[in-house]
Formats: sequence, structure tokens, C-alpha cells
Amino acid sequence: MTSTKDFTLGVLTSGGDAPGMNAAIRAVVRTAMSNNARVLGIANGYEGLVNGEFRELGPRDVGGILQRGGTVLQTRRSQRFREPKGQREAIRRMNEAGMDGLIVIGGDGSLRGAHALATQGIKVIGIPASIDNDIWGSDIAIGVDTALNTIMEAVDKLRDTASSHGRAFLIETMGRNSGYLAVMAGIVCGAEIVLMPEVPSTVEEVAQSVEDAYRRGKTHAIIIVAEGANIHTTELARFIDEMDVGFDTRVTILGHIQRGGRPTAFDRLLAARMGTKAVDLLLADQTDVMVGLKGMGIVEISLEEVTTHERPAALIYYEMAKMLAR
Amino acid sequence: MTSTKDFTLGVLTSGGDAPGMNAAIRAVVRTAMSNNARVLGIANGYEGLVNGEFRELGPRDVGGILQRGGTVLQTRRSQRFREPKGQREAIRRMNEAGMDGLIVIGGDGSLRGAHALATQGIKVIGIPASIDNDIWGSDIAIGVDTALNTIMEAVDKLRDTASSHGRAFLIETMGRNSGYLAVMAGIVCGAEIVLMPEVPSTVEEVAQSVEDAYRRGKTHAIIIVAEGANIHTTELARFIDEMDVGFDTRVTILGHIQRGGRPTAFDRLLAARMGTKAVDLLLADQTDVMVGLKGMGIVEISLEEVTTHERPAALIYYEMAKMLAR
Amino acid sequence: MTSTKDFTLGVLTSGGDAPGMNAAIRAVVRTAMSNNARVLGIANGYEGLVNGEFRELGPRDVGGILQRGGTVLQTRRSQRFREPKGQREAIRRMNEAGMDGLIVIGGDGSLRGAHALATQGIKVIGIPASIDNDIWGSDIAIGVDTALNTIMEAVDKLRDTASSHGRAFLIETMGRNSGYLAVMAGIVCGAEIVLMPEVPSTVEEVAQSVEDAYRRGKTHAIIIVAEGANIHTTELARFIDEMDVGFDTRVTILGHIQRGGRPTAFDRLLAARMGTKAVDLLLADQTDVMVGLKGMGIVEISLEEVTTHERPAALIYYEMAKMLAR
Amino acid sequence: MTSTKDFTLGVLTSGGDAPGMNAAIRAVVRTAMSNNARVLGIANGYEGLVNGEFRELGPRDVGGILQRGGTVLQTRRSQRFREPKGQREAIRRMNEAGMDGLIVIGGDGSLRGAHALATQGIKVIGIPASIDNDIWGSDIAIGVDTALNTIMEAVDKLRDTASSHGRAFLIETMGRNSGYLAVMAGIVCGAEIVLMPEVPSTVEEVAQSVEDAYRRGKTHAIIIVAEGANIHTTELARFIDEMDVGFDTRVTILGHIQRGGRPTAFDRLLAARMGTKAVDLLLADQTDVMVGLKGMGIVEISLEEVTTHERPAALIYYEMAKMLAR
Repeated sequence: MTSTKDFTLGVLTSGGDAPGMNAAIRAVVRTAMSNNARVLGIANGYEGLVNGEFRELGPRDVGGILQRGGTVLQTRRSQRFREPKGQREAIRRMNEAGMDGLIVIGGDGSLRGAHALATQGIKVIGIPASIDNDIWGSDIAIGVDTALNTIMEAVDKLRDTASSHGRAFLIETMGRNSGYLAVMAGIVCGAEIVLMPEVPSTVEEVAQSVEDAYRRGKTHAIIIVAEGANIHTTELARFIDEMDVGFDTRVTILGHIQRGGRPTAFDRLLAARMGTKAVDLLLADQTDVMVGLKGMGIVEISLEEVTTHERPAALIYYEMAKMLAR
Repeated sequence: MTSTKDFTLGVLTSGGDAPGMNAAIRAVVRTAMSNNARVLGIANGYEGLVNGEFRELGPRDVGGILQRGGTVLQTRRSQRFREPKGQREAIRRMNEAGMDGLIVIGGDGSLRGAHALATQGIKVIGIPASIDNDIWGSDIAIGVDTALNTIMEAVDKLRDTASSHGRAFLIETMGRNSGYLAVMAGIVCGAEIVLMPEVPSTVEEVAQSVEDAYRRGKTHAIIIVAEGANIHTTELARFIDEMDVGFDTRVTILGHIQRGGRPTAFDRLLAARMGTKAVDLLLADQTDVMVGLKGMGIVEISLEEVTTHERPAALIYYEMAKMLAR
Repeated sequence: MTSTKDFTLGVLTSGGDAPGMNAAIRAVVRTAMSNNARVLGIANGYEGLVNGEFRELGPRDVGGILQRGGTVLQTRRSQRFREPKGQREAIRRMNEAGMDGLIVIGGDGSLRGAHALATQGIKVIGIPASIDNDIWGSDIAIGVDTALNTIMEAVDKLRDTASSHGRAFLIETMGRNSGYLAVMAGIVCGAEIVLMPEVPSTVEEVAQSVEDAYRRGKTHAIIIVAEGANIHTTELARFIDEMDVGFDTRVTILGHIQRGGRPTAFDRLLAARMGTKAVDLLLADQTDVMVGLKGMGIVEISLEEVTTHERPAALIYYEMAKMLAR
Repeated sequence: MTSTKDFTLGVLTSGGDAPGMNAAIRAVVRTAMSNNARVLGIANGYEGLVNGEFRELGPRDVGGILQRGGTVLQTRRSQRFREPKGQREAIRRMNEAGMDGLIVIGGDGSLRGAHALATQGIKVIGIPASIDNDIWGSDIAIGVDTALNTIMEAVDKLRDTASSHGRAFLIETMGRNSGYLAVMAGIVCGAEIVLMPEVPSTVEEVAQSVEDAYRRGKTHAIIIVAEGANIHTTELARFIDEMDVGFDTRVTILGHIQRGGRPTAFDRLLAARMGTKAVDLLLADQTDVMVGLKGMGIVEISLEEVTTHERPAALIYYEMAKMLAR
């Protein structure tokens, strides 16, 4: 094990931001401190790594950020880091700053970047953060629980008004390739219908389900549509409007609201545990792994595995959503 | 003054629902009880009035509804009530049920219906409830405060994520003819730009404001667009995307979420005061008036006046929003 | 496997209520329906079982309850059910009503009652619901996540005002025998100090920690005290007030607020999964088990085991809370 | 009118913090900027004024504070400022810094301090901010609406659990001398009983009301007790517990939670309007006045009047609370 006395670690957030990223940064800094290691915060993700945008972070620098959405380190897309030249420049910057290891907090693309650095000899640990929950190797990523609660609170409000009229409400959630948020929202909001990218439907099938709900005596229909579903929200709205079933339709597009908000207790705890574990692994000379939640435990998974596997769709929950909506 | 011993009053909610309608129903029922009057709840607005969908409401029937969004009496559009024949039928139903007076909770159209009944000899009192705040004669209607807080909380979440990236966010609020919600949201959310129906803009002007914000050092731009603004949200998004200013744009359409949610303290208090006053007026033999908030007091305004005046746009707040955004 | 055609199952909630109980009832009813089984809702917990307070529940009866706190079936303490005579009476009532099995949603005591019935030949499945998270055999019980978020939101508000003054805030959480909520709240709220029943402290130690926090430059101190901690909240407040460290103290006792509120997404999902599984087990002729969350899966554990083991204290999290507070 | 070119104004927050103070600071700074005036932020209230803790505030310095509770300028009690010597020192500091006028945001005591400075020749404008709503001359102060919503949300949660058991809940709100928050909370939460300092009661009267509620068929009782009521919360709880009416009692002490949280739309708007007006008055050579809300308008009232009058109790609302609780 490295003597942690002179250990300097860098931490960056990358990709789409997720609530809880700040809680993870805080846990990294405070755990490092308690191990006498030094932390350099890297601004603007990989772009800041290439540019050398580093500043030292002490325990007071992360005071008061636990409950804030977004990321105090900022995040940005970096075209330059995708090229070998940009990565070499990043490595040069890290060496120059005396950085002994790096913690990367982000989604799929960010973890691929982390793996690329690790294969070039940099010690890197990844922390999964992405509201889409599309990362292999962790039961759940930082940000998912908050996003799901945000969607749920929005749909709860729709329900209030839905039951005062006879209406069909379409709510578009995030998820270009993953229906996770949509289907889980379906269960926790008691939606009548869920559309997800992994399960293509036809407008006729949806129309049939709406009509069935109506016949079962439902006074309204809640339809949750993942951004990446094969039928587009507004197209579907038009179709249902033209049906003869008696439901007016109304569309809500939640958009980036789903990325914001104070992180939930679950996300703060997950971020605390993952941030703590990531520092422990780095100080124990580990590299090229991601920390992940498996059951009650925080484990490590090789970044090779994480970046070469695709998370399967939550089909069992899709069926559960259907059954509970009856 | 009528002996209230045998007084029977009806209460209905009509038009788009607004948070606080239930609190108003509760206040009507409890105030009537304390004056020994009887209350008939009318389901489904004017449609239920035409159909005679009445049921007696006692104090326990309105227990636990204070904090609920929507309306337990339901609301529906009624084509039949717009015709003189439908109105005659409604009056027949009211007479049959021994209804001595009616309280109508709703927006502009609902109050016009109330006025129509009053001119035919029915004792009617109106209570303004509409999230658009487009009703003449009351500083504010029931539901506006809740809707404004709902928009604000959504924009607060966007801000978390906006400041982590460099982005322009467009949020579409309700308000087909009235920019009240949009402009007030502009002030309370610190939006950079507000578009309202009463103040037409060009995309070029908006683009210029976005660029100015960028030059003043803002890391993001929040743009609030009323549903009825002369530029459509998605059109505007496309235009800003194509600008060279460096902001990505993202669209949120809040939709009917704005009608839902538990009413705020302000809306519950307003509903309590208006409901109480409406019953007092009815029992004091008044008719053809709406209760309204004027400063700290609840006053009455003739429905004739209410239904023949248009509420002016909140232009002074439009200027304030601009100044505070700098 | 029993033919589910004629299967009749009863469901009750018992003990202290927990957010998500309604979501569990809904899942039980809807899953039973989809298996053609019949459901009798039992009012007022075991007291209602002894009294035969049963009514049939159909799919529409559980519409709109998913998002509500508390329990629509009510809960009550039952002295009579603790006696063998009361239990015999309950069994008689169940037989009379043709009940083929029972699902009990509740905490430790309720599960002991379930086990007692099972040993007398009744088919019983337990579902753990208790905000204290003191039940053996499930990683987490229904209601814990919501309670934790409720505490967290309260402490987030204190933080706003705490950092405007130099103050020490004491927050008393529920937990007579278990410090779970207190210690988890400590982590997710970034509390400076946590007091839990399982780790006795002296006022002097606490005072020292407050002084240390002050010396490390903290502008305020958040102290979370479990109801059952060996030092009482108000006693501790008085002691810190008299210290010379410069912090005024203020006390908040959250009380039953922690039991209320709309269930979070996590609790609704957990309730859906547990309710579904409980019905599946009952229809598969299982008895005398509790459903529990183990990692990502819902498993069954014998009620014998559940009721004879004590859940260990969350000491590892106690250490984590300490480290992250520095 | 003073040429605003060279005008320098100071702004401080003082006394107990109130949500919306930051929104007021932001409005002061942005309005000053748009009038080419300069702003010095004074840290730590009057104590900072005596110490000369000044720093210039530009438009970006108040970015992102609109939605934050507490006050970025901090607040502190100042013993020194109460003495003439301290006030002279403060005036010397202001002159030294070239301060042409001062805006004081705070409660009763803070406004008395402002008046004291004004009578010594300093140009001072007051802005009322206090969750107690105990300030003469403004319909409502900054912070009241947020505090009331915070109390309401807490009581809404209690209601969820209250109706699952048969219980009496006592909730202690802030208000040592003023029952405003308690009585308004009584109306908006539908409390069965309210105790306020201005209306002394006996435990027997309260007990009678609890019993009456029980007899009217209420399944629970919500009792709101202002901090300064003549009967103490815990004493009352003990008394009701010993009654034979069948309600268990549970106590919640909200404490400083009521000061925290993101300001509501109402408070942000009020703060924007008052902050804007205060700067306008100062630049128009006015002094020794407080801005206040009167109906829909923001007006000025002499600080002499404000500090020599006591706001009357909200007795009309006390009666309304009673009537609506039946």
C-alpha cells in the first residue's frame, strides 16, 4: 500500500450532471483528508483535465455542497480528450501537478474515458453517476433515485387535476436508450401505460390500452413515454385525441428538471459510500475499476467489464407496471 | 335578512380546476353549517346542475379535502348550459331541490354562467378561481399562488443543472391570453427573459437578450414563455440553437402540472376567506356579485362589471423582471 | 398450488403506521385480482381481525391511495389479540369469512402476531413496514426511506438559518431502540454529531465534539439525537448552552411528522414488490414467512427467524458519519 | 434628486433571519446597478457596521442567491450598537467608506436601530423581514409566507398519520409575542384548536374543545400552540393525555425549521418589490421610513410610526379558525 502521506488525487465530474455528484465530491475530499491525502479538484470534466484547470480542495471547500444539485466542479463535453493527443496532454498535466491518481464521477462515456487513461498507466477509479441508470455493474447509479422522485412528484400533481376531469396525460421522461426511469415511474406513479425504447409498440396498441382503462372505470389515464420510445410523445397525443374514447390529452415534457433538485437521502448516502470507497481503493493501489452497489455492499468492477457490457432492460418491472395498473 | 334556518345553498366548481377549490368548498360548507343553512354539492359543474347531480354535504364530508388539489365536486364543460334551454332546465332542477341560492367557484366563463343565472332571478355569488389570474375585480384568484410556486420549483431545479453546463432553458407556462404567470415566474425565478402574449417580440430581440446575458457573464439563460406568446417555444428553441452564442437549448413544457399539487397556505387562506364571505353574502340576500380580494379585504364586485372588463397586463412587473435580471 | 379461483385473502396493517403501507395494500389487491383471488380488507389491525371488521376490496377501491401517507385500513393497538382467547376469536372470524390466508403489514410486534397465527394453522405472510428499520431479515422496511427524507428536508432548512448565525441545532428523531434513522440522517445531512441508543456517550464527549467543530472553522453545529439515546435532547441542549464555545442552541423535535408524508419512489417501489411477492407466496401455499429485500431481490425469511433475532446497530455508518463530518 | 452617479449605499440584514432576505439583497443590488449607484454589503448586521465589515457587491455577486434561505450577509446580535458610542462608531465607519445611505432589512429591533441612525442624520430606509409578522405598517413582512407554508407542510404530514390512529397532535410554532403564525396555520391546516399569546386559555377550555371534536366524530385533533401561549405545550400534552377522551397525544416542536427553506414565490416577489422601492426612495433623498405592503401597493411609513405602534392581534382570524374547524 502506498504511503498516503504524499498521495495527491484528482477528482472530476463529467457527462450529463446528476443530483448527488456534489455529495460524492464531498465524500472524496473528506475521506482523503482523513487519510492525509491531498485533493485537486478538476474543473469542467476532461476538458479541464486537458487544460490543467486544477485547484486544491480542503474540507471547508466542500462544506454546504452536500444538498446542492448539479456539480460544483462543472461538467463539459470535451472533443479534444477523445483524441489520443488530448489524452497525452491530460496525462502530462496530471504528472506536472503531481497527481498520483484520479477519480472520475460520471456516466457511460465518462467511464470509457477513465478506462482509456487507466490503460495508459494512470491510476483511475470510476464512480457511476447518471440519471438514466444505464451503466453496467452497479445496481443503481448516483442520481437515479432523485430523478425518479422528481418525475413522481410531477405525476402526482397531474393526478390531482386528472381526476377532476376525464383526461389522458402524456408525460415524457428522459431516457434516449433506456426505459428505466419511464418504467419505474410507471410503477411508482401508478401509470396506466408505459412506453420504453426497449419495447416497441404501435399507436393502435396504446389506443387499445387507453380504451381498456376507460372501460375498467378509470376516470383518467396517465401515459409515461421515455424520450427514446419508438412512438413520439406529440404524435401519440394527436392519435389519442382523435380516438373516440372521450379522453382529452395533455402533454408534459419534463426535460432537464429531471437532472436538478436537491439529491434525495438515497442518493446522498450512495454518493457518500461510493466516494469513500473510491478513495480507499485508490489508496490501496487499485486502478481501472468502478465502484458499484451490489445488494447492500459497495464492490469494485473492472472498467473493462463496465464499458463492454450493456445493461439489460428492466422488463420484469415493465410487466409489474402493467399488472399493477389494472 | 333571510332566516337562515331553512336556507339551502348549492355549490359547484366549473371550468379548469385550480388548487384551493376544495378549500373553498370546505369553507362554504362549514360556514353554512355554523349559520344553520343546508348545502347541496353539485357534481360536474354546470353539466351537473342541468342534470340535477346533487348530494347533501355535511361538515364531515369536507374533512380531509383542505389539502387536496383538484376538486372533489369535479368539473366539466357543459355545452347544454350555454343554451337558454339548458339554463332553464338548471333553474328547474334548482327549484325542485329547494335551492335558495348558488355559489359558483371558477374562472371567467364560469362567472359569465353565474351572471346569466342571476339575471334570470337565481341568487348567485361567484368565487374567482383560475391559475391564469385573468379575472377582473380581484387582486388575485384562487390557485394562482400555488401554480406560481409550482413553476418556481421546476425552474429552481433547472437552475441547479443549468449552472453546471452552459445552457439556455426554455420553460413554457400556462397562459393563452394572459402573461401573468409567466412574468411573475420571471421575477421569482430570476429568469433572463420573459415572453408574454401582451408584449409581442421578435426572435431577433430574444436572441439579442440571450447574447447580452452571455456577455454579462451569465453561465446560463432561463427563458420563460407563456403558452400564448407570439413566438412558439419550440420555434424559439430552434432559433437560439442555431445562434453562435454557445448556449445549447433545452425545452420544458410544464403543462397541467401547474394545475395540480397541494394548495399553498396563501391559496388555502384566500379560499377560506372567500368561501366564508360568499355564504355571508348569500344569507344577506345579495346576488349577482363576485367576492374579490382588494388589498387586505374581501369585497364584492358586481358580476356585470366582472364579466365586461378585461384585466390589464402586468406590464409594470414585466419591466421589473427585466431590471432584476441584469 | 391452490387453485386461486376461490382463494380469499385478508390484508391488515398493524402497529405504528409507515408511509408506503397504502402502496402495499394496493399491490396486494391488484396482484390478487390478476390471479382471480378475492381480497378482504381488515380495518384497525388485529383489533379489527378479532371484531370481524372486514370489507371486500376491488381494484377501484385502491385507486388513488398509492401516494397517500398513513393507511386506509387504519391501525390500532389490540390488547385482546395478545391473549390466546383473542387470537382464537380472530381465527373464528377468519374461518367464518372464508379467509384462506392473511397478509400482515407492520413492524416487529405485528410480525410476532403473524407468527402466532401461523403456528395455529393460519396461512400468514408478513410484510415489514416500520420507519425505525429495526426488523431482522430485510435490508430495509417500508417507510424508512420516506422518514429519512423527511428528516433530511427538515435539517436542510435548519442549515439555511444555521449558517446565518453561529448556532448549534439539536434535532430529535424517532428511534427508541434503534439509531438507524439518526445515524443515516447524520450522513445525509452532514451532521456534526449523532447520538444513538446503541452507542452511549457522555455530555462531556458531545461538548468536546462541538468545540472541535467550532475550532475546525464550522459556523454551526447540527446534532442529531435519536429519541432513545442515553442523553436526553433538552438536557443536552442545556449543557451546550452553558459551554463557553459561543454556540447558542435550538431544539427541534420532529415527532410524528416522520411517519407522514407522501411515500417516496423507493418506498412505493418496495411496497409494490413486497405486496406482489406476498400474494404470490400465499397462492403458492407458503406460510409463516416474511418477504424481505436482500440486495436487488425480494426473498422470504421464516417468521420464526425474524421474531427471534435482533437487528444489529448500524455501527459502520456511525463511523462514516463521523469521518464525513470533519 | 441626488445624482445617483456617485451614490453609494450600504445594505445589511439584522435580527432573526427570514426566508427572502437574500432575494431582497439581490433586488437592492440590481436596482442600484441599474441606477448607476454603488452598493456596499455589510456583514453581520449592526455589529459589522460598527466594525466596518464592508465589501462591494456587483450584479454577479448576487447571482444564485434568490432561492436560498438565510442571508448571505449574515446576521448577529450587537450589544455595542445599542450604546450611543457604538452608533457613533458605526456612523464614523459609514462616512469613512463614503456611504450615502443605508438599507436595513430586519425585524422590529432592527428597525429601531435604523430609526436611531436616521435621527442622527444618516439616510436610512427599512425593509420589514420577520417570520412573526409583528411589525406595524406593512400588511405582511418578508418571510411570513414561507414560514407559514413550512408549518403547513409539517401539519399535512401529521394529518396523514393522525387519521390512521385516534390521536391528538400538538404542534408548537414560533411566536413569543405574536400568535399570527399559529392562528394562520390553524386556518390553513384545519386545526381543531389554536393557542396564541393574545388570547389566554385554561387547560380545561382546551380539554373541552378536544372532547367536543371527538364527539363531533373527528378521528384526531390537531392543536397548534404559539411558543408564547399562556399554557406551555408539554404541560398541555400531559393534561390531555390524562383526560378520558381516548386521544393519545404527541408533541412536535418545529423550532428553527420555520426560519429556513427556500423562500416561496410570494416572499421572493415581496422582497423584489420592497428592495426595488427602498433603493428608489433612498435615491430620491428620502430617509427614516420603512417600505411596506398596503393592499397591492408598496408604500412608505415613517420609522417613527413603525417603532411606536404595536401590531394588533389577528383576532378575526382566530374566530374564523374556530368556525372552520367545526
